[in-house]
Formats: sequence, structure tokens, C-alpha cells
Amino acid sequence: MMRVLICGADGYIGWPLTLQRLSKGDSLVTIDDLSRRALARSLTPISSYADRHKEIERSDVQVIPCSLLACNYTLLQEVFTSNTFDVIVHLAEQPSAPYSMQGVEQSALTQTRNIESTLVLLHLMKTYCPEAHLVKIGTMGEYGTPDAPISEGDISVDFKGGSMEALFPRDPGSWYHLSKVFGTYNIRFACKVWGLRATDIMQGVLYGVRTPEITHESVINRFDYDQCFGTVINRFCAQAVNELPITPYGMGTQKRGFLELQDALQCLDIVMRNPPGAGEHRVINQFHEVHSINDLAQIVKQGAYSLGKRTTVENIRNPRVEQEEHVYAPEHQWLLNHGFKAKYSLREGVRNLLHDIAPYTARTDVSTITPDIHWR
Amino acid sequence: MMRVLICGADGYIGWPLTLQRLSKGDSLVTIDDLSRRALARSLTPISSYADRHKEIERSDVQVIPCSLLACNYTLLQEVFTSNTFDVIVHLAEQPSAPYSMQGVEQSALTQTRNIESTLVLLHLMKTYCPEAHLVKIGTMGEYGTPDAPISEGDISVDFKGGSMEALFPRDPGSWYHLSKVFGTYNIRFACKVWGLRATDIMQGVLYGVRTPEITHESVINRFDYDQCFGTVINRFCAQAVNELPITPYGMGTQKRGFLELQDALQCLDIVMRNPPGAGEHRVINQFHEVHSINDLAQIVKQGAYSLGKRTTVENIRNPRVEQEEHVYAPEHQWLLNHGFKAKYSLREGVRNLLHDIAPYTARTDVSTITPDIHWR
Repeated sequence: MMRVLICGADGYIGWPLTLQRLSKGDSLVTIDDLSRRALARSLTPISSYADRHKEIERSDVQVIPCSLLACNYTLLQEVFTSNTFDVIVHLAEQPSAPYSMQGVEQSALTQTRNIESTLVLLHLMKTYCPEAHLVKIGTMGEYGTPDAPISEGDISVDFKGGSMEALFPRDPGSWYHLSKVFGTYNIRFACKVWGLRATDIMQGVLYGVRTPEITHESVINRFDYDQCFGTVINRFCAQAVNELPITPYGMGTQKRGFLELQDALQCLDIVMRNPPGAGEHRVINQFHEVHSINDLAQIVKQGAYSLGKRTTVENIRNPRVEQEEHVYAPEHQWLLNHGFKAKYSLREGVRNLLHDIAPYTARTDVSTITPDIHWR
Repeated sequence: MMRVLICGADGYIGWPLTLQRLSKGDSLVTIDDLSRRALARSLTPISSYADRHKEIERSDVQVIPCSLLACNYTLLQEVFTSNTFDVIVHLAEQPSAPYSMQGVEQSALTQTRNIESTLVLLHLMKTYCPEAHLVKIGTMGEYGTPDAPISEGDISVDFKGGSMEALFPRDPGSWYHLSKVFGTYNIRFACKVWGLRATDIMQGVLYGVRTPEITHESVINRFDYDQCFGTVINRFCAQAVNELPITPYGMGTQKRGFLELQDALQCLDIVMRNPPGAGEHRVINQFHEVHSINDLAQIVKQGAYSLGKRTTVENIRNPRVEQEEHVYAPEHQWLLNHGFKAKYSLREGVRNLLHDIAPYTARTDVSTITPDIHWR
């Protein structure tokens, strides 16, 4: 049994993680400000925040509707003085690269909110629970696509006869991805100066909506498919169940690492049960299979076919600025060394996902899938 | 003649830079929100913002009292549509490592303000003047004190048979220094994706209050000496003119690069006259002499002695977390290659500074010099 604070508990990872931790008998405090609900409409008919709580109110769980901002610090101090935490999971960040690239307001909101939420948690931890374990979700997008393998954690950098331990170089591709890099730097600093301990998870593209605890529609997980909040896999799946062309951006030769939701929850459980030492900023890479976007499109197309849905793949002009032909060899040994065994291949996970969202096909607003947010 | 926007024009660099550019016949727009005046009291009796403007209103200059925040974007768009800029100098950031280390509010304010101001300028430049040259002041503190020479600009990083061009590793030592790193990343991204051009100046410790244009007290420059906004050199000089012990933090063997104000203005002039190419993010290191803090203390002590002031050097407990014994070999070739010739040694510059502030000794509030903001 762990005492866990989940920040962003109403979100795509936060909600199934809440259900998982309750099923494991953890004591929970959950925080969310519902900002995602205001920005994106889920294809799956998720319950209201109030109705979700009714599903879990029988358990040892306290629900705090609140943003992780400095203006709420007094309220948050109350949460930290009236509870003891072993693990703090920070999922309460503003997501979406395209959202952040829309204009000055969205770029500023994404970066300032994400920085402030992490600073608030770090200060609370320093004061009230310096021994707790911060688990923070970054993104594989922090690294960009370098012409080299991507390490987990620090590497040795040599320059003119000297040598230093340094963060693996970051080359993020949007204001959003930059905000994740800034979080990494801030956490690293707090570990060094305040002796906090943190696991910083560079996560690949997550997909899937089912978990063992999601047994009926009243606890269904969200599924975003619009150009901003829908990942590439979700957009392709939404297109496929609607028998619309699947539209990779550009050449489609870009490669990414993918991970199914239940496998991700297995990873998070391993991370939570293996805290780093005091002062340690542990960076791990979390994904299962690497595929090109064209591969993914074919996998989605074939999965849809087995459901009786016929579609095509039509590459469109890339609205992003990104390398389309590149090396992609990220390491991900830490989780494997600590017992992670993926249960789902991308092919199998996509088939499950298509099956799970197909009943809601009529809810699709297909106009939101087409990209009109351009990087340039 | 250049058309220049100076952001932060009421500040320690911004004000003498304003006077310099006017004397060179530039066309100017200046922006400031006076936030520094609210946070720190200058030893030198600086004129009010209104009185400063009276000094320059005869010239081709437009003064905008405004913060560089997204909420002021409409107002700022008006400035950019009614003016054309060749150079935009961004000095409008929240300074001070100790200020940022006071607590959650100060850390969040420092990082979010500094990020937002840079994002606002980058978006304005993209829309209204993508050919203009952004000149941004970072800090040598972005690098920390690595066991290697410090490059200007990118280095080649090798990892497991691959190789990538990367930013020289950053290892900043406060929430404030982190905010400068975040600015560097954001500018780098805007240059890459939007084709903007920028010079990102990693500046050493600046000191001095006199410039050729500061000929009478009504245009005097500010001199901060408190624990937050006073640099190490200013605190030592304020102690010395008051015949108080000079107090290096810790062993005093920490090394830093120093630069006199008029030499810094010479550097800025060289930078402004040498814009990088479109899409180029040029990083330069700007300082003249490297000294240890103990050396500096002796130089201040000896300078004060020649003014008839007697003091001692008394190292005190270091309130910061920083390496005290370290390699320090930063490169700074770009400015030398482009004609920079420093006029002032640290010894000579300190003597001038002590002479210039001595008349205001009675204005010192010595209680503000003693550090009570601790990193841990």
C-alpha cells in the first residue's frame, strides 16, 4: 500500500491510473482542474467529473479540484499538511504540440502553466515531504531525432580536453515539447540542490482506452482525436472507423516509439515501486515498439479491415517542421531491467483500440481532424 | 542609423544603452514596466521615469510603459505595426538568482515572466519583422562550472557511434539562471523553425555606472547593492565605501568573468552592427577578465584604500549551493574577432565605480546586504 498523490487525475493517464491504484489498495489524493475537458471533446462518452467521483467515493480517496498554480499554494499546503505522500505523480500538464503552436497565447499558456505546476510541486515536496518520490511524465519528443542512439540519463560530454556529465542533448520540436524540457531542468535542479528524488519519464506515443478496471461505460477513458489533442495513432483510428483516408504528415518516414495504455500502467507501477535515492534525478525512456508513421498507417488500415471498415492511406503536406528521414535508436533498458514485459504489440493494441472506439463512431466530428495549425 | 527597440530601457543596461543609441543618432522605441524600481532601491539617486524622459524627449524616441506579456499583445502589435525595427534588444527580464530562490512565488514569477517576454517578442518578430535582429542577454551562469573549457555556440557531442551538434551543456544554479536557459532554448527553436536571427549573449558580471553620456546627476544610472539585486561586485563596493567588512561567500575561490559597463556597451554596439544570417542562433560569451571572488574582494579593498576608506575581507558561510573550487575556462573569441578592445581592467573599473558611488554612501541601507536567502 502506498500513499499517492495523482495530479491530473481526470486525464487520459490520470483516470485509469486512479482506478489502478485504488484496485491495488493505495490511499489516494487526486487533483485536477478539468482544463482538458474545456479544450477537447472525447470520442468516448466520458462521465462528468462528479459522476466519476461517485464511482470511486467508496474508497480511500480525496478529490481536490484545483490548478497547480502558485496562486493556489495556500490550499495546496493544506493538502500536504493533512496528508503524507510516498509518491507524487505529476500528470497535470497542458498537453499538445499543435495547441502550443497556434499563437502567442497558447505558447505562453503551455509553457508558463507547465513550468509553474512543476515548481509548485517541487516547493511543496521540499517543505512537506522531501523523502517522497516525484514521478513526472516528459516526452521522447524532448530529444528530437539526433543522429545517434538516445541514452537514458546523463552522458559524458568531452570538449577540448575536459569532460563533463550532462543531460543527453535536447532538441524539442514545439513550444509544448520545450515546456517538457524546462520541467526536466527544473526537476534536475531541485534534486541536486534540495536532495529530492524523481523519476522523469520520457514517454513515447501512448494509445488504447481499456484497462482491467474499466469494466463499464460509466468509467470509460477519454479518447481525443482532433488535430491538437489527438495523437497520430488516435487520429488515424478515428479516420479508419469513419472509413476516411488515413493521412500521415509528409513522407511518413518519421519514426516514433509507441506504448499501449495497460503496458504504460505496468511501467508506472514499476517506477512507483522503485524510487531513486535521495538527490537522484532518474531519467528513463518509456515505450515498447518503434515504427514509422507509414507503418502505423498500414497497421491501422489492416486493423480496420478486420472490423469490416475499408480505408486508404493518403499522405498529406506536413504542417509541422520535423525531420522525416532520420536515425531513431533510443535506449529503454531501465524498465526492461526492472521486470517490464509488454503485453501488447502495436498491431494487437491497435486492433483493440479500433474495437473499443467503433461503437462511438457516430460521435466523430471529422472536421477537427484535418490540420490547419502550421509550424511556419 | 538603426531603428532599435530597447525592451527594459529603464534598467541598469537599458538606460545607458538608450543614451548611447541616441548619441549615435538611432531611432528608438523603448519599453519598460518599471518592475525593477518596485523591487530594489538604487544607491545612486536615479531620476523618476518621467524625468528621465524629459532628458530624452527632444530626440527621435517613443516611450512605451508596458510589460512584455501576452495580455498586452494588442498594444504591442500596435507598436510593431507603426514602427520598423532593425534590432530588438531584450533586456526586460526579471533578474536575480537570490530573488528567485526565496520561495514558490518568486521562482514562478521569475521563470514565467522571463519565458513569456521572450515568447511575446519572438511572435511579434515572426509576424512583423522576421528580418530584424534579436539581441538577448543571457548569462554565463547558464553554463555553471563544468570541468572543461566553455564554448561559444554549439559543440559536437558523440554517443555510441553517433554524433550530433548540440548546445554546450547547461548547468544553471538557480531558478533565475534556469529561466535564462529556457530563453536560450526558445530563441534557438524560433530561429530554426521561423528563420529568425538572434544573438544570445552569455554575459559575465557587469559593473560600473558611468558612460560618456551620463554627464550629470539627472541621468545617473542605477546601482543596486542589496543581497538580491546587487551583484557580488556591487555588494563589495557598497560595503567598502561604508568601511564594512567585505564578505565573500564560502571559500571565495569561485571564479567569474567580469565586464565594465562601457566595455559592455562597446560589445553591444559590435553585436548590433553584426547581425547573424537568417535562421542563425548565435551564442557568444561576453566578459573581459576572469577573477576569483577573493581576488575581487582584494581589488575592492585596495581601491577603497586609495579613496581613504579602510575595510577588511571576512568570508562568510555561503548561502548558495555552488562549486567553490572548479575549472573556469570560457571562450570569448567572437567579440575579440569582431574588434572588441576592453578599455578597463577590473582594478581600474572598480576604482572608478567606488569613486562614483562614494558621494552617495549615506544613502546605504546596510541591512539589505547581509544574505538571509538560502539555497537550501
